[in-house]
Amino acid sequence: MVRVEKLVVVGVGLIGGSFALALKEAKAVRRVVGVGRSAANMYRAQELKIIDAAGRFDAETFGDADLVMLAMPVGQTRSVMRAIAPVLGRHTVVTDAGSTKEDVVDMAGHELKASLSRFVPGHPIAGTEKSGADAAFAGLYRGRKVVLTPIKRTETRALALVRAAWRACGASVFELKPREHDAVLASVSHLPHVLAFALVDQIARRKDAKRLFRYAAGGFRDFTRIASSHPEMWRDICLANRKGLLGELKRYQGELERVRRMLERGDGKALEGLFAGARDARNRWLKEGQ
Amino acid sequence: MVRVEKLVVVGVGLIGGSFALALKEAKAVRRVVGVGRSAANMYRAQELKIIDAAGRFDAETFGDADLVMLAMPVGQTRSVMRAIAPVLGRHTVVTDAGSTKEDVVDMAGHELKASLSRFVPGHPIAGTEKSGADAAFAGLYRGRKVVLTPIKRTETRALALVRAAWRACGASVFELKPREHDAVLASVSHLPHVLAFALVDQIARRKDAKRLFRYAAGGFRDFTRIASSHPEMWRDICLANRKGLLGELKRYQGELERVRRMLERGDGKALEGLFAGARDARNRWLKEGQ
Repeated sequence: MVRVEKLVVVGVGLIGGSFALALKEAKAVRRVVGVGRSAANMYRAQELKIIDAAGRFDAETFGDADLVMLAMPVGQTRSVMRAIAPVLGRHTVVTDAGSTKEDVVDMAGHELKASLSRFVPGHPIAGTEKSGADAAFAGLYRGRKVVLTPIKRTETRALALVRAAWRACGASVFELKPREHDAVLASVSHLPHVLAFALVDQIARRKDAKRLFRYAAGGFRDFTRIASSHPEMWRDICLANRKGLLGELKRYQGELERVRRMLERGDGKALEGLFAGARDARNRWLKEGQ
Repeated sequence: MVRVEKLVVVGVGLIGGSFALALKEAKAVRRVVGVGRSAANMYRAQELKIIDAAGRFDAETFGDADLVMLAMPVGQTRSVMRAIAPVLGRHTVVTDAGSTKEDVVDMAGHELKASLSRFVPGHPIAGTEKSGADAAFAGLYRGRKVVLTPIKRTETRALALVRAAWRACGASVFELKPREHDAVLASVSHLPHVLAFALVDQIARRKDAKRLFRYAAGGFRDFTRIASSHPEMWRDICLANRKGLLGELKRYQGELERVRRMLERGDGKALEGLFAGARDARNRWLKEGQ
C-alpha cells in the first residue's frame, strides 16, 4: 500500500481536491498542503478538510513534499512549473492531471530542470461539469481510468509512486505516449465538448432563443451537459491540443456534410443505416463497461 | 376530471404505452385496446397490463373508441390514417404523438376525411433512448411538456379532451402552429440527435475505433445518449422535417466553421467568450426549470 507523507496539490478544485480526498479516504496520505490563486477557494478547501494547510511557491511547501499534483487549468502549467522547479525537493515526485499531454511534456522539458526525471505526466479521465473545491469528492476516480504518459527519462520509482497513488484512489491506470493520448482525447472528449458549447452558443445568440430553450428537454440537457464545463479550462485544452482538435473538427465537419447530403437527397435508407450503426456501436461500448 | 371509456393506442411502445399507463394510473381510462405490427410486442404489452386487449384496424376496435392515440413511428402515419379513416366512430377523437407536425397535419388533411375536425395533432416532449412496450412507464410525462398544434377545423371538444388527457398524465400543455413546432424542435431536438448519431458513427467507422472508445468517459456517454435512440423513428423524423433540419444543420455548420477559425488563429479570448456564454445560457436554462 502506498503511503505519501506529504502531498502538495496545486489547484484545489474538482480534480486536485478529489485526488486529495481519495488518498485521505484510503489512508494513503498523511498531510496535504494546497496551493492556489484564490484565497477564498483555499479557505473553503481547508474548511472541507480537503487540505490541512495552505502553502506557497516556496521551499517550505515543496522542499519536503513526496508528491506534488498539478491540477490547475493547463494554461498555467508553464508558470507553475517555473515557480516550483527551484524549490522542489531532491526526491519530490511531480505529476499532473492536465487534459492534454504533449504540451505538458514539452513544458516540463523546458521548465522542470533537475526534477524532470521525477515528473510523471498523467490525465485522469474523470470529472463533472462542476469546478472548485466544493465540487470535489473522494469517489470521483473510483472505477475510472487514468492515463499516464511517461517519457524515456521518467524514473521507475516516480512512475510506480504515481501509479500506486491513482490505484489507491480506485482508478485503473493505463499508459500511452503523449501524442497518442492527445489524439485519442481530441476525438472522444475535446471534440464533443466543443460541439456541445457550439450548439448552445448557436441557440443562445438567436432572437428566438427564449422560445427555443422553452421546448428543449432531456435529450438536449444530456447532450449539452458538458457545455456547462469550465470555460477557461476548455479554452486552455483547445489551445494546447489545437492541432489534434482541428483535425477532429475537420473530420467531423466532413461527416456532417455526408449527413447533410443524405438529408438533401431524402435518402432514408442511408440515414437509417448510419443511425443504426451508431446506436449499435454505442450500445456495444456501454455493454463492454466503457 | 377526464374519463375515457375506451382508448385505442396504435403503436404500444415507449410513448403510446406510457400514455396508456399514465391514464390508467390516473383512473382516467376504463379500457385500453392496443394495435401494432409486432405480435410479440402486443403480447408483452398485455402481459405488462399496458393494454387490456389487442385490436385490429377494424370497426370493432375503432368504432366505439372515445380516443385514439397514434404513437407508431411517423413514417407509418399516412398508412395508419388511411386504415382507420373508414372505421372511426362518429365521435371518436384522434390524436398523435409524432415528433413532427406539419407533415402529420398535411397527411391528416388528405386521409382522415370526415374525422379531420376531431383530429388533434400533438407532440409530447418526453422520451428516453429506449423503445418498445418494455420501456413504457406511467411517470414518463409527469412534469413534461406537450405541444398541441390544432388547425382551424379542430373541434373545441376534441381539443379539450386531448388537453385533459395529457393533463391527467401530469404534463403541461402548450399550443403552437405546426410550422412553429417543427422549427423549434428542429433546433433543440432533431439537430442534437443528428449530431450525436454523427459523432458516434464517425468514431465507429475508424480503424482505431476500439482504442478511441476505450478512453471515452462520462462526457461522451451523456453527449451521445440520444445516439442510442430508435433508428427508424429518427429516419422518419429527419425525412418529415427535412427542410427545417437542413436549415438548422446549415446554421450549425456555420457555427462550427466560426469555432474552427477561432481555433486556427489560436484565439483563446474568443473561444473562452463563446464557452462562457454557452455555459451561462445553459445554466440559466437549467435554473429556470427548463
